[in-house]
Amino acid sequence: MTSMKGIAASNGIAIAKAYRLEAPELSYETITVENTEQEVTRFEEALEISKQELAKIKEHAFKTLGQEKAEIFSAHLLVLSDPELIQPITDKINTDKVNAEAALDEIANMFINMFKSMDNEYMRERAADIQDVTKRIMAHLLQVTFPDPALIDEEVVIIAEDLTPSDTAQLNKQFVKGFTTDIGGRTSHSAIMARSLEIPAVVGTKQVTASIQEGDLVIVDGIDGEVIVNPTEEQVESFKQKQARFDEKKVQWAKLKNEPTVTKEGQHVELVANIGTPEDVEGVLNNGGEGVGLYRTEFLYMGKSQLPTEEEQFDAYKSVLEQMGDKPVVVRTLDIGGDKELDYLDLPEEMNPFLGYRAIRLCLERDDIFRTQLRALLRASVYGNLKIMFPMIATLDEFRQAKALLEEEKQNLSNEGVAVSDNIEVGIMVEIPSTAVMAKQFAKEVDFFSIGTNDLIQYTMAADRMNERVSYLYQPYNPAILALIHNVIEASHAEGKWTGMCGEMAGDEIAIPILLGLGLDEFSMSATSILPARTQILNLSKEEMASYKSEILSMNTAEEVVEFVKAKANL
Amino acid sequence: MTSMKGIAASNGIAIAKAYRLEAPELSYETITVENTEQEVTRFEEALEISKQELAKIKEHAFKTLGQEKAEIFSAHLLVLSDPELIQPITDKINTDKVNAEAALDEIANMFINMFKSMDNEYMRERAADIQDVTKRIMAHLLQVTFPDPALIDEEVVIIAEDLTPSDTAQLNKQFVKGFTTDIGGRTSHSAIMARSLEIPAVVGTKQVTASIQEGDLVIVDGIDGEVIVNPTEEQVESFKQKQARFDEKKVQWAKLKNEPTVTKEGQHVELVANIGTPEDVEGVLNNGGEGVGLYRTEFLYMGKSQLPTEEEQFDAYKSVLEQMGDKPVVVRTLDIGGDKELDYLDLPEEMNPFLGYRAIRLCLERDDIFRTQLRALLRASVYGNLKIMFPMIATLDEFRQAKALLEEEKQNLSNEGVAVSDNIEVGIMVEIPSTAVMAKQFAKEVDFFSIGTNDLIQYTMAADRMNERVSYLYQPYNPAILALIHNVIEASHAEGKWTGMCGEMAGDEIAIPILLGLGLDEFSMSATSILPARTQILNLSKEEMASYKSEILSMNTAEEVVEFVKAKANL
Repeated sequence: MTSMKGIAASNGIAIAKAYRLEAPELSYETITVENTEQEVTRFEEALEISKQELAKIKEHAFKTLGQEKAEIFSAHLLVLSDPELIQPITDKINTDKVNAEAALDEIANMFINMFKSMDNEYMRERAADIQDVTKRIMAHLLQVTFPDPALIDEEVVIIAEDLTPSDTAQLNKQFVKGFTTDIGGRTSHSAIMARSLEIPAVVGTKQVTASIQEGDLVIVDGIDGEVIVNPTEEQVESFKQKQARFDEKKVQWAKLKNEPTVTKEGQHVELVANIGTPEDVEGVLNNGGEGVGLYRTEFLYMGKSQLPTEEEQFDAYKSVLEQMGDKPVVVRTLDIGGDKELDYLDLPEEMNPFLGYRAIRLCLERDDIFRTQLRALLRASVYGNLKIMFPMIATLDEFRQAKALLEEEKQNLSNEGVAVSDNIEVGIMVEIPSTAVMAKQFAKEVDFFSIGTNDLIQYTMAADRMNERVSYLYQPYNPAILALIHNVIEASHAEGKWTGMCGEMAGDEIAIPILLGLGLDEFSMSATSILPARTQILNLSKEEMASYKSEILSMNTAEEVVEFVKAKANL
Repeated sequence: MTSMKGIAASNGIAIAKAYRLEAPELSYETITVENTEQEVTRFEEALEISKQELAKIKEHAFKTLGQEKAEIFSAHLLVLSDPELIQPITDKINTDKVNAEAALDEIANMFINMFKSMDNEYMRERAADIQDVTKRIMAHLLQVTFPDPALIDEEVVIIAEDLTPSDTAQLNKQFVKGFTTDIGGRTSHSAIMARSLEIPAVVGTKQVTASIQEGDLVIVDGIDGEVIVNPTEEQVESFKQKQARFDEKKVQWAKLKNEPTVTKEGQHVELVANIGTPEDVEGVLNNGGEGVGLYRTEFLYMGKSQLPTEEEQFDAYKSVLEQMGDKPVVVRTLDIGGDKELDYLDLPEEMNPFLGYRAIRLCLERDDIFRTQLRALLRASVYGNLKIMFPMIATLDEFRQAKALLEEEKQNLSNEGVAVSDNIEVGIMVEIPSTAVMAKQFAKEVDFFSIGTNDLIQYTMAADRMNERVSYLYQPYNPAILALIHNVIEASHAEGKWTGMCGEMAGDEIAIPILLGLGLDEFSMSATSILPARTQILNLSKEEMASYKSEILSMNTAEEVVEFVKAKANL
């Protein structure tokens, strides 16, 4: 028996035989060829088969994992169609009279090294994409089998150094019970995929491929981040019990599905969900969501070659609103730019994209894009309880401009005889410090606030949340963050408005007691967090938490806050 | 007579004949060469001459413009010594049997396009560097004269599309009375150089090269951003008067050199200067500075192949302290990273460098670097009135860690028998929103605050100050910014501490009345702004400005604030 620690990347426990997912052997010899035409054909055939395979994997991913995940393969397909990569390869075959393997390897490596050496996140991803597809073409040239996890037909736990996007897209939940990798973190691609698939996973173990043989019995404990190889019978039994307890918890949570969210003293708060597509609504309702607190509309714009039409958008918004019935749906207008790019908009790469041209800044300049979205939203408004929210508002001017465009389109639709709800609340994301500081002025003009903690924290602490070197500064419990949140809630209540929160913090068990005490009205989180949060809130007293407010706000460090809350809220 | 508007980049008025600084004609023909060895030699000779020239220009720049400016040419010299650029050129000559011009052009363009296409500020600068040096080598290969502004020996105004770093470094103030360009903004390289040289300049006119002939009489009005070609005699007279009024103002200012800075009611505030090197102290004293509010120590670390030693640093700090006598000198510890990089530290390129690993974040991890600086500072402390300031403090923890390292080094020096002042104030830059929000907690532990508005504004508004697309959000007068400044000042006064400001805002005529009203104790600015600021403050009532405080802080937009202050402070 061996036990290894790793990062708990996806909840649950898997017990099954090990399946080692290994990269194929792709070594080749450089050969001088006479018939270069034939060699080019051979290359083009390998390319074509790779394209077909990727298209299939993309389709498979789309069905089992949704549009967002499938987009990775659009990127791969784009690489395969990029003449800047492909042309030099055929040129090289013709000019240097070498075999396709040598030409592919040399040219691809040139690009990979070039992109890698830039030491820039976008470019490194580009390098990874090229590497992934190059291996596939090479395998076809060498007539070597490229690993195809889709063929797995018995219950296994996958053991791998890391999983590539193509790997995870092919995983069949029926047979793949869990996986564990040498590298990766909680936000690495494979970890995100695991949570999306609801497969238990432990990543970043550093040593699973070195320690586990094909066929070994393996326990993957995605709750506590442990991997056990060839466990004793007692261990298997004990982990089965752990899984049962976890399942039992889920059953308990499920019972609260149709219950209201009330504190100990019976005060109601709203637990709502973050969604990205109309398909996500089912999960919200299954998990007892009281509404949608954040509908991210970016996915409508992504993985396309052009902007979505008004009709496409209208259909999506209408679908979400109808499914949600009279429950509120807060739709955030386009938040593109920053780390989310659209090829067809040709946005300039910026030195500091998180401090750049994105979201409302882009929408106010490109009001053609913005008006289309606003029209689609307004037309959909009669199908449910719509609230509209503008992202990245930094000044009152921006809000006023955005609101004016909305009013103009409302008037235009009315002139066209199109019905529009006259009861649409219009609010803003509070994710920029200036807006949190000036909440008093904003509260007079907006209908509601929704605090976006992911961005608010990174700007307030001046620390990129994606940058590991400064991740210690991503402090949700820093008293400065709590003071800003407090300021926003107080300002809204003084004007009879409400404040929600749609960042990751809203679903966090340490944050929930604090936020309750600060008076937050609406908590928006991933659907699967709603029932655990409801369970927690049932056992919390809002009055008690409110009584700690000034003590917490005058603390010196995030650590002090966490320690205090843990003690007071029994965590 | 033609008149053109542009951006006023450097104060003053120049009237002189036009000197068109044009790029040389560098076209060539691709030729097949038999004797590749000879061709490589020809290339190497052109390279060698270019190196010698650049070394000379660098030396010239160092003497006339200072170390910082001269570093541009270190970058150029590095390019010329980069085997990754040079080797492929000689390879190409040998392999393709082409002339050196063709090989240089093709390889250089490949790199230039590669770096340009990245659309990333660092990389674009890299591309510009390569372009600049390639032209020089090409000119030598073609035996064409490369423009040499250092040879100008009569009074002229330079007309150019833009000025390259090599161009500006060669400008001789005695003959070059001013310049104007088609492109560029207030913070472009040529604008910064103009201010540093104190040469009047108007940039970004879009059309000077198209509208001005060699020898035309030209007026460059760097006060209001206007360029007049072939003016009438009346115009020449009128601009001479304008220059005279400007000179007269300077005379008036100079009279206040040894006067204290007091408001109308006789309240004293401190006007101090920002400096970068010991050489800058002369300017501070000549302009009546009451101290140094910000000594940026980065220049000690830049343009070197290794870290500065404790001795080198000690010498610099001691020199500044001795020159300043008993006047206060606030030294900021190393603020490197972000947009300021050091080759020998090999910092990773980051996706958002402004939100990344820099300043105190780096110093706390690389405490070897930090301790050396602290020791040098402590040893120098006995030579004057030293105050130490830590940059980019986001949490109290960071301040405590930095302070603890300082105390440790103090103890170490004491153990070694080295004298250290026991009267060193230790403060922090307030440039991160979290710190401004938590000023109350910080004020109990620091000796002083200095507000760094350049960064504070960009983080609070979440807008990169270098990014033109979001420059509208760089709003010093946004009520949120003023509220944070107010919070910091109030918090410091409540604990009997003082607050200064060392961002650009401190020297701004609209900001000064507001800051006076908010109670700012110390204004740190570029030396040349001190006397104009003193003049302004003599005519302002602090009490009156303080009476507008709550009205200003509850305003909705920066525009409202500016309009209000202009009216109240007669601007």
